[in-house]
Amino acid sequence: MTSIRRLRADASGDFGWDGVDRLRYKDEGSAPFKDITRQVLFSQPDQTCELRYFEIAAGGYSTLEQHQHTHAVLILRGRGTVRIGTDVQPIAEHDLVTVDPLTWHQFHAAADSALGFLCLVSKERDKPLLPTDQQLSELKR
Amino acid sequence: MTSIRRLRADASGDFGWDGVDRLRYKDEGSAPFKDITRQVLFSQPDQTCELRYFEIAAGGYSTLEQHQHTHAVLILRGRGTVRIGTDVQPIAEHDLVTVDPLTWHQFHAAADSALGFLCLVSKERDKPLLPTDQQLSELKR
Repeated sequence: MTSIRRLRADASGDFGWDGVDRLRYKDEGSAPFKDITRQVLFSQPDQTCELRYFEIAAGGYSTLEQHQHTHAVLILRGRGTVRIGTDVQPIAEHDLVTVDPLTWHQFHAAADSALGFLCLVSKERDKPLLPTDQQLSELKR
Repeated sequence: MTSIRRLRADASGDFGWDGVDRLRYKDEGSAPFKDITRQVLFSQPDQTCELRYFEIAAGGYSTLEQHQHTHAVLILRGRGTVRIGTDVQPIAEHDLVTVDPLTWHQFHAAADSALGFLCLVSKERDKPLLPTDQQLSELKR
């Protein structure tokens, strides 16, 4: 429906929008993560994709995972790092991050800054895979 | 391909990214517009949608048009206005704009500020329609 939804940052500066719910990132206990929320900004009935906004509090992180679908991410706020395979790179506002299919990746907010990012995905997509203990130790060697 | 593409704002502050071309908004002469460029940020082979970035210089504007596909826009930079039908509203950084199918709309940058916005679209979509002279005079009455 035609609308203009305004940004409303709360007292701590966290991003929210009129009429957009702040959701749990995933079901609790499904995989390791810390201090991250999910908001669906656009999910139009006539479109096959969604635009979501994830926000990680300072010191928090997303799940280390991989999936078949390509990841397309734009950093909207703050600073942190992204792990892609064994490589860890700094990321900041407006950087574009593309992650190939079946590539391990994880986002960390900086210790002193939240990290907020947009993520473009198809509505139909495969579920993420988690690393085995052996894969984890190889990644972090 | 896995990558991190950094924002590189030029001397005038215009947004660009490593490896992303600044394209013409449309073919010249196809429809009225002023001082606007287009950049395709994400167009993954396995995704059915694209994320584009449009930047309008101060005083510029997009084409007044309508189309069957829903418009999903996030303002990334600056200030301006959006016309939706006969209604004109101010827009600023991080506002979300949704425009229903077959609804006239047009983006204007402010006289003293550029306006940059993300637009999510399906790769397969209908072409925009332009107003007749009569529709235009009714819209702007």
